[in-house]
Amino acid sequence: MNRIITIGREFGSGGRELGRRLAEALGCEYYDREIITQIAAHTSFSEEYVRQVMEGRAHRLYPITVGSSFSLVSGAHADMVRSVFEAQVQTLRELAELSDCVIVGCCADYLLREQHPFRLFVYAEMDSRVQRCLARGEAGEKLSEAELRKRIRRVDRDRARFYADCTGRTWGDRLNYELCVNTTGCEIKEIVPALERLIRAGDN
Amino acid sequence: MNRIITIGREFGSGGRELGRRLAEALGCEYYDREIITQIAAHTSFSEEYVRQVMEGRAHRLYPITVGSSFSLVSGAHADMVRSVFEAQVQTLRELAELSDCVIVGCCADYLLREQHPFRLFVYAEMDSRVQRCLARGEAGEKLSEAELRKRIRRVDRDRARFYADCTGRTWGDRLNYELCVNTTGCEIKEIVPALERLIRAGDN
Repeated sequence: MNRIITIGREFGSGGRELGRRLAEALGCEYYDREIITQIAAHTSFSEEYVRQVMEGRAHRLYPITVGSSFSLVSGAHADMVRSVFEAQVQTLRELAELSDCVIVGCCADYLLREQHPFRLFVYAEMDSRVQRCLARGEAGEKLSEAELRKRIRRVDRDRARFYADCTGRTWGDRLNYELCVNTTGCEIKEIVPALERLIRAGDN
Repeated sequence: MNRIITIGREFGSGGRELGRRLAEALGCEYYDREIITQIAAHTSFSEEYVRQVMEGRAHRLYPITVGSSFSLVSGAHADMVRSVFEAQVQTLRELAELSDCVIVGCCADYLLREQHPFRLFVYAEMDSRVQRCLARGEAGEKLSEAELRKRIRRVDRDRARFYADCTGRTWGDRLNYELCVNTTGCEIKEIVPALERLIRAGDN
């Protein structure tokens, strides 16, 4: 069975950098945003729609109260989300069967549970996450610090909702992970060798 | 400043073994149950009473509804608990100033926060904890598996209460720790070298 490492992460905690470096250290594949493309290819939907569903935003963007018939709209949307979910499961299983890999997000910790992945959750204090976002100049480019905090909270809320919908579990609940790592005030590259060793610890 | 590692742990998760082995690996002192003796020495109370307070059991053993005057009994007991708390802070600070060390329990993660300890939380699935207790034949000696589960839940509840009383925080909340380690199905001695490396990662 291939070695699968899954990474759940709070927005701005450096989880993606950690995943990328860990994959380098372990010499295995790294899957992140490109999974969306593969999932979309298994459905009739656009990448953008799949992304919205998988970031937990679809519910907000296509509210079930739109339209004259509550149950009809709700039913149609639920079917679309279910299709995305099935494609998500299929894609994750295909990737897990291909080779050793690190997978960021996508509820892979739960959906690949039969492959016994090493499940990491990466988190940090809010101030540290704001600083990390500002430093990488990505989400924070045109946002004030207050707006950035608001965005971080919203993204986390969306992730938690999507995770709960897919798994019936609570996002970030420690029992869903082998290890929860606080990256506050921490250089990601400095902790990767130890994490690699921890992941390899059960090899014998 | 000395290197301080604090360990919070769910009952039966192997947190004490992990602490002991980590102290050996780091070549530093290890403090666990013996802290009670030192704390008691700073008070006029018996070791047994201090232990009851620090295991969060005092509240249950000396209920404030006993006696004719609610406020009097409550006030006297509160004063005693406060004395234990002050002795606890004093003892922890003395130990932290002596040398590098691993400290199990005692809310040391919070009470020594000015010493910037590396804060570990050790946990595991309930089945794993039951098996660990049975294997070490300690708490489980004369208990059925059902009784053992009940005991594990009660000890954790007491620890959570004591932690909340001392710190105003939630016991086991990931933000109170640098690392949360799930020991389910895990040989403690196998993960210690990686944890040692992680703790040393910030040394440069």
